[in-house]
Amino acid sequence: MSVNLRIPGPTPCPDDVLQAMSRQMINHRGPEFAEIVGRISDGLKQLFETKNDVLTLTSAGTGALESAVVNTLSPGDRALCVSIGNFGERFADIARTYGVGVEMLAFAKGTAADPAKVAEALRGDSSYKAVMVTHNETSTGVTNPLGEIAQAVREVRPDILILVDAISSLGSVPLPIDTWDLDVVFTGSQKGWMVPPGMAMVAVSKRAWDAAETAKIPRYYFDYKKAKSYLEKGQTPWTPAVSVYFAMDVALRTLLAEGLENIHARHARLGQLTRDGVRALGLRLLADEQVASNTVTAVWVPEGVDGAALNKMMRTEYHTVLAGGQGELTGKIFRIGHLGYVKEADIQACLDALKMALPRAGFSPSGVGASAR
Amino acid sequence: MSVNLRIPGPTPCPDDVLQAMSRQMINHRGPEFAEIVGRISDGLKQLFETKNDVLTLTSAGTGALESAVVNTLSPGDRALCVSIGNFGERFADIARTYGVGVEMLAFAKGTAADPAKVAEALRGDSSYKAVMVTHNETSTGVTNPLGEIAQAVREVRPDILILVDAISSLGSVPLPIDTWDLDVVFTGSQKGWMVPPGMAMVAVSKRAWDAAETAKIPRYYFDYKKAKSYLEKGQTPWTPAVSVYFAMDVALRTLLAEGLENIHARHARLGQLTRDGVRALGLRLLADEQVASNTVTAVWVPEGVDGAALNKMMRTEYHTVLAGGQGELTGKIFRIGHLGYVKEADIQACLDALKMALPRAGFSPSGVGASAR
Repeated sequence: MSVNLRIPGPTPCPDDVLQAMSRQMINHRGPEFAEIVGRISDGLKQLFETKNDVLTLTSAGTGALESAVVNTLSPGDRALCVSIGNFGERFADIARTYGVGVEMLAFAKGTAADPAKVAEALRGDSSYKAVMVTHNETSTGVTNPLGEIAQAVREVRPDILILVDAISSLGSVPLPIDTWDLDVVFTGSQKGWMVPPGMAMVAVSKRAWDAAETAKIPRYYFDYKKAKSYLEKGQTPWTPAVSVYFAMDVALRTLLAEGLENIHARHARLGQLTRDGVRALGLRLLADEQVASNTVTAVWVPEGVDGAALNKMMRTEYHTVLAGGQGELTGKIFRIGHLGYVKEADIQACLDALKMALPRAGFSPSGVGASAR
Repeated sequence: MSVNLRIPGPTPCPDDVLQAMSRQMINHRGPEFAEIVGRISDGLKQLFETKNDVLTLTSAGTGALESAVVNTLSPGDRALCVSIGNFGERFADIARTYGVGVEMLAFAKGTAADPAKVAEALRGDSSYKAVMVTHNETSTGVTNPLGEIAQAVREVRPDILILVDAISSLGSVPLPIDTWDLDVVFTGSQKGWMVPPGMAMVAVSKRAWDAAETAKIPRYYFDYKKAKSYLEKGQTPWTPAVSVYFAMDVALRTLLAEGLENIHARHARLGQLTRDGVRALGLRLLADEQVASNTVTAVWVPEGVDGAALNKMMRTEYHTVLAGGQGELTGKIFRIGHLGYVKEADIQACLDALKMALPRAGFSPSGVGASAR
């Protein structure tokens, strides 16, 4: 029996990607693997819309967050962290851990960052070395207006580093890295890329490479310079998750054939379908509609319903796996992932299951819910 | 056509392990994955012969080296690094990167560390916080007498931390962690475990946990405390390489059924077969026989032969992939891996291929070679 895995990563993988995962090992320092590493880096550059170096790391996305901090900053540097949820907070935590003086510019959960406020914060303090920002906040289902934020930042500080957590957005929603002049931008294989977790992918600008020359936070495993010098010979400095590279090679072929515009249109369509469907059930979205994410939708657990019990019923009785809330939103929201290898039918099946489960979990449409129907 | 992958990792994987790699994704925070995480940690404890906590990290083995340093030491701490080759040097490099004052106690390549000299170094300086040591040096094919080293260390310094790179030994050759009273011991999925790369596994002693309480090197991605707190709920703090966990779960079932003594005997048999076969070809081993590794054999490239050309001929014409030398041994040795999922027939096929390739690569048995025949 097939499970409808509707968490925002790991996302389901197509059959040919899974088959690639089961390929026998090869020499990670041999010519065949060098071709794969080269193809992956080139393919990612196209889908990242960048001429910057694109490095791959064997780690979770959190390793990429850490890498962005440790490769570009020094203890005592100051950074402005634009946060709209849990992953913004994590980015800040990591920077603080490594001795960076972090100023938080936080926006209410469910809302996006205001570019004008970001510019204002930068104007008020010229000592910032970097702006850290989450493109798509997976914990709240909000996509920041990153292009506008970047423009506002550059107007005040043309030289500042812009470090972007694009884990659940890059490759799924528009993010033209070079056009928006972003410095370190990263994602993970288990998101829109339709590949199992184990690889993080990072685009590094000239400005970021210059910063790396003087950045004093110690680094070894996540050192970009080592990664780049090995990439030049079609390798990674440390033994990579070889199978995930096989899988990424196959997935990129599919994604490049589909084309970036089609991929973005598909995610926009599925995002809309999810939001419309959820509202039609009488439920409320956490995110403001105009900034709602096309990769993940966060939904308020309605009055009278136990969020954990609803998710459990969805999983055990309707074979549909939803994500819960994180941090202070635990039990208050559930989340539906719609990124990567997902079709209209998967979303419709999820909505149909919710329609059956909700009344059994104690939901009776009324008030806001009913009027939104 | 089947390739005989004879590098010391990634090692070939059995069919059922590869099939597990192609399983569809599941929720890494759900009940099914929690069972897998729990089973893996328990299985590893048995094969590690330890009651210590066993954590899993999504990284290459080098990430585990880094984790051992950053979780137990502070900038300014002093450590004695017992090195017999490239990976000993890497361990020291990492410690230096994070501000540890490293004293090198290096032994010639091809030889093992002398426990008496380790004890002497510790007696000469009571300021060391840790001893760092490689159990099996993959770059030279030497296994250190770790039990004797640990005993010598404990006689001088019962309290000191012993950090062990056991990447290419643990699970393949005897390494009773608790009996030898070792503090941080780690390996990687792509070695004797017959699993693709992507997971590092670390055993952490009470003494190491105590050290972690005061260790001041900053850490986030590789933080043991976070890993332990998530392990207690059957999770990892960051999205794990889910497929590698599926594969490890299957491989551990096979390894536990085989039993540790049989696994060790198998590796001893294959090591001996490789060394005897290589000598019968008229070649010389890098390692002294009494410390030669049962997981990887390093062989001097004979006079008149181009090491790179030999490896290329073996690969392209005999479908046998050997490893070259590293660092100053590049071009001077080749290496044969015989750990994990490898049978007598694989070693014999490798030796047969060498017998055919060597004369074509310019080798004529004479001198030491001929007399060793």
